[in-house]
Amino acid sequence: MLEKFENLHGLKRTDRCGTLSAKDIGREVTVMGFVDSERNLGGLLFVNLRDISGIVQLFFDTANEELVKKASTVRSEFVLAARGVVCARGEGAVNKNMPTGEIEINVSELRILNKAKTPPFYIVENSDVKEELRLKYRYLDLRRPDMQRKLILRHKVAKIARDFFDENGFLEIETPMLNKSTPEGARDYLVPSRVKNGCFYALPQSPQLYKQLLMLSGMDRYFQIARCFRDEDLRADRQPEFTQIDIEMSFVEQDDVMNVNEKFIARVFKEILGVEVKTPFLRMPYSEAMSRYGSDKPDTRFGMELTDVSDLVKDCGFKVFSDAVANGGSVRLINAKNLADKISRKNIDALGEFAKTYKAKGLAWVKHTAEGIQSPIAKFFSEDEMNKILERANCEENDVLLFVADKNKVVFDTLGALRCEVAKRYDLIDENKFNLLWVTDFPLLEYSEEEGRYVAMHHPFTHPADEDLDKLDTEPQNVRAKAYDIILNGVELGGGSIRIYNSDLQEKMFEVLGLTKEEAESKFGFLVEAFKYGAPPHGGMAYGFDRFVMLLTKSASIRDVIAFPKVQNASELMTNAPDVVDAKQLEELGIELVKKDEKEEN
Amino acid sequence: MLEKFENLHGLKRTDRCGTLSAKDIGREVTVMGFVDSERNLGGLLFVNLRDISGIVQLFFDTANEELVKKASTVRSEFVLAARGVVCARGEGAVNKNMPTGEIEINVSELRILNKAKTPPFYIVENSDVKEELRLKYRYLDLRRPDMQRKLILRHKVAKIARDFFDENGFLEIETPMLNKSTPEGARDYLVPSRVKNGCFYALPQSPQLYKQLLMLSGMDRYFQIARCFRDEDLRADRQPEFTQIDIEMSFVEQDDVMNVNEKFIARVFKEILGVEVKTPFLRMPYSEAMSRYGSDKPDTRFGMELTDVSDLVKDCGFKVFSDAVANGGSVRLINAKNLADKISRKNIDALGEFAKTYKAKGLAWVKHTAEGIQSPIAKFFSEDEMNKILERANCEENDVLLFVADKNKVVFDTLGALRCEVAKRYDLIDENKFNLLWVTDFPLLEYSEEEGRYVAMHHPFTHPADEDLDKLDTEPQNVRAKAYDIILNGVELGGGSIRIYNSDLQEKMFEVLGLTKEEAESKFGFLVEAFKYGAPPHGGMAYGFDRFVMLLTKSASIRDVIAFPKVQNASELMTNAPDVVDAKQLEELGIELVKKDEKEEN
Repeated sequence: MLEKFENLHGLKRTDRCGTLSAKDIGREVTVMGFVDSERNLGGLLFVNLRDISGIVQLFFDTANEELVKKASTVRSEFVLAARGVVCARGEGAVNKNMPTGEIEINVSELRILNKAKTPPFYIVENSDVKEELRLKYRYLDLRRPDMQRKLILRHKVAKIARDFFDENGFLEIETPMLNKSTPEGARDYLVPSRVKNGCFYALPQSPQLYKQLLMLSGMDRYFQIARCFRDEDLRADRQPEFTQIDIEMSFVEQDDVMNVNEKFIARVFKEILGVEVKTPFLRMPYSEAMSRYGSDKPDTRFGMELTDVSDLVKDCGFKVFSDAVANGGSVRLINAKNLADKISRKNIDALGEFAKTYKAKGLAWVKHTAEGIQSPIAKFFSEDEMNKILERANCEENDVLLFVADKNKVVFDTLGALRCEVAKRYDLIDENKFNLLWVTDFPLLEYSEEEGRYVAMHHPFTHPADEDLDKLDTEPQNVRAKAYDIILNGVELGGGSIRIYNSDLQEKMFEVLGLTKEEAESKFGFLVEAFKYGAPPHGGMAYGFDRFVMLLTKSASIRDVIAFPKVQNASELMTNAPDVVDAKQLEELGIELVKKDEKEEN
Repeated sequence: MLEKFENLHGLKRTDRCGTLSAKDIGREVTVMGFVDSERNLGGLLFVNLRDISGIVQLFFDTANEELVKKASTVRSEFVLAARGVVCARGEGAVNKNMPTGEIEINVSELRILNKAKTPPFYIVENSDVKEELRLKYRYLDLRRPDMQRKLILRHKVAKIARDFFDENGFLEIETPMLNKSTPEGARDYLVPSRVKNGCFYALPQSPQLYKQLLMLSGMDRYFQIARCFRDEDLRADRQPEFTQIDIEMSFVEQDDVMNVNEKFIARVFKEILGVEVKTPFLRMPYSEAMSRYGSDKPDTRFGMELTDVSDLVKDCGFKVFSDAVANGGSVRLINAKNLADKISRKNIDALGEFAKTYKAKGLAWVKHTAEGIQSPIAKFFSEDEMNKILERANCEENDVLLFVADKNKVVFDTLGALRCEVAKRYDLIDENKFNLLWVTDFPLLEYSEEEGRYVAMHHPFTHPADEDLDKLDTEPQNVRAKAYDIILNGVELGGGSIRIYNSDLQEKMFEVLGLTKEEAESKFGFLVEAFKYGAPPHGGMAYGFDRFVMLLTKSASIRDVIAFPKVQNASELMTNAPDVVDAKQLEELGIELVKKDEKEEN
């Protein structure tokens, strides 16, 4: 026998809980929501009812015995509908910390729409419950107001994006999810075909090819908030499926793409955070970003820029330094200003360990204290040499210089990370700043030792700088790309490029990348063919939408801004996906599982 | 050596081609686009330049020899940038059929940004080129203005949906694509897991479970334009991936969902077609839709409703009729009014063949001509019997009655389809009508002969009608559902239901569907658990977005409103997806292909 339960019949919600205030006093309202808490104060019953807008207090008049009896059965997370009159609270009962704290609802009709088991954790703001438990019961975790605010904000950013790009003549066009696997790029998620056994679709890593084809088709300005997939081992802020704000424009140069995107970003900051950001943003060439910040994602909220002292130390007595320069590397330092009293010897050792994770062999240091210079490497330098270093580093009393000597890549990687780490540890970052800048003029190619060839730094469709076209044959390493990244507080929000639109240049590019004509044909044949029918100049941009929202909400994890995220091993803890499937399903797809022992043999 | 090609450097587009008119005369403009056509009229060169906004005529002054020489090399689909002054055309040259037909651009600077091979088909409106060729060169097919208009309209409908639901308090929340495979419903597309070899994700058939969980999490009103996947054999207007406008609301009853969706549909019709549709829409119970139209998707743009004559013929001498009634079936007819002179004997035979595709054994008919009644079955009826039939069918001179006698399902299916077919063949449909109505009160369950049990007509989460709850045990076949479909001109635009929110009722429902506790637990365990923590009453709706756009654009095929659609065998002709992949990819996934001969053995 089914237990009778109450329904909504004949009752309409008139208001959201959190929207009621003194202006509603005297109105009869009907609210619906979840029980946030219930109290019995000497026989007086109060229930805090919660919906997505906030919380309102329900009061049950003791005169109505039946009602009070019913209300007294109510527990946390029960689902209620309540009709009653909005009343002012007694003077002592006003709660200034609550938007609805001046009023309560004197309930005349109560319906218990659903009961609830005791949840495995409290539904409160800023829960410190283990994330595994939160994700297993994500539907309860998302009842927490801070999580709801994040998803509301995410919705708003997406809405602003759609409004903005629509107003600027972009069409949102959906591109396919069941694609062809392309061997360049990250690992694809594959989808076996039932109709063509032995063949597979790939889920898109990005809509790159399709959006370029849309430009070829004359769609002029394309935009999409698109789901993308990469089967990579997950790092802290990576998800196997993620969302991209994806943009492409025809008949544009780099500045045109950057201009429209600056306006978009400024609009988001204005509407979401109430922050006015100045346009145009700073534009910094890659080479400058590297030499000043050791990073193509410079965090400019603090100083501590890199100083190159290679020329000063190339003949010094400290072999680590002189060898690094002799081997084509460099010696650079950062100056941790006014921190000598805070950075102990032990702290420096810890920073040294940090440096080693970036492949530096060690961290040399100089402290400028009231007593003079302290440094284990001081003995290798003449006073003149040391003074020149101190001068160039603008080293004053209470400063600490941290040196790395190695191949340039290691020097940049290490000092770039170290300056952020020092800033974090010694609280140099103004968390209220939103520093936005473009990094431009990336190298087109990087040499892959592993593959013994040049690979595209961005992707093989990125246009070389016009001035560098002639260098493609002679000095490919020095060819710059029409590529640009947008950086917010040291994090890459997005990036893009002007694309190759000339099919001869595209074939040249494949040649530079070491592809034979046959390989290029089999990998990108239909695309090269497409470009022969008249391609307009075009370029675009893509934002990591999850990360964008994470930064705007100052969330600790990307998982906090995704309704149902996956964890490190790419599984979802709530549904337990992925999971085993029926043998019949595999049979239809013409695939079978490799048996364990078979695998071990291989 | 790379051939030099021209770029945009220093040139900015000022206007779109199709937006220029007499008001711009005298302005210097820069336009960019594709060559739609070029003409040489006795040495005078004209080029029609096309972009997404339309076409404008370029003119090259013969005085500028170098320019004319360059312009004369231009061919169809070349990509150009042209700067010049907008001029009035000479009087004889005005083209009234062209929005920009009063003006032309007297070009002073021309850049040939790209050349083009001759396309495999003409880039013109309403091409009659074979669809295979169009899809292979989709990027050229999408240059055709009629295709561009369809994608623009699709963008607009999506934008209206997002504006409307945002204004009404709905949050767009993205739900995962890499899901758990659930055995109910259509066939899933599977995605093998690399991290957990032997396990699979499934691509979503709809966000159903997640949107219900979002209601459990108190998100209140959810909305998403979501990609969905079904691995079914494709029919004419099906795609393996399709797009759904997906909605869910908390604390609502059926009317609330219908009301907000009527407002949405009315807004789309107003903004897209300029058509005012009256709300509320007609609401028709399923039983009425079936008895009047033989269909749960009635096309009400024309009459020809079904007439039940079972009681009149149950004792007649025509065994086909009397047996059908005796076996629990029925005899029904449609009256093809005033068509006797148009529907020949041969035409009736053709309709009979059509009827057979719906499992009818044949089509009986009566023609009322000036000479009286003509019918092969007249001899089985007394005059009185025949007159009663004619009277009930409102049969007048020049009418044709078409009868089907069978089990009710066959009678409805056949006559439901036949009335549409007759209407189509004899031009009874006013194509300017947009008839919208709700079909409500669907049966909750249907008996599956194949499975020997009741199955959910909608899905197992649909709420039974409150008045019918007690019948779940005693007469499940008569339980109605809180389910509703929205029908436009005989096509289902979308549908939805109020969901079960009481976990006891949900378990009861699984029991009625013949699932053991263990099966229910293993299939829907986490969901049933979720419902125990306090679920609000909720319900929702989903629209087939592709089909919606197809109807609004009066397109012949759903493929015409999808940028890159798939064909019958679920492949994409442009990229040739799905395709074979590297052995290494499969190895990482722990799967292998079943070999052909192995398969044949099985």
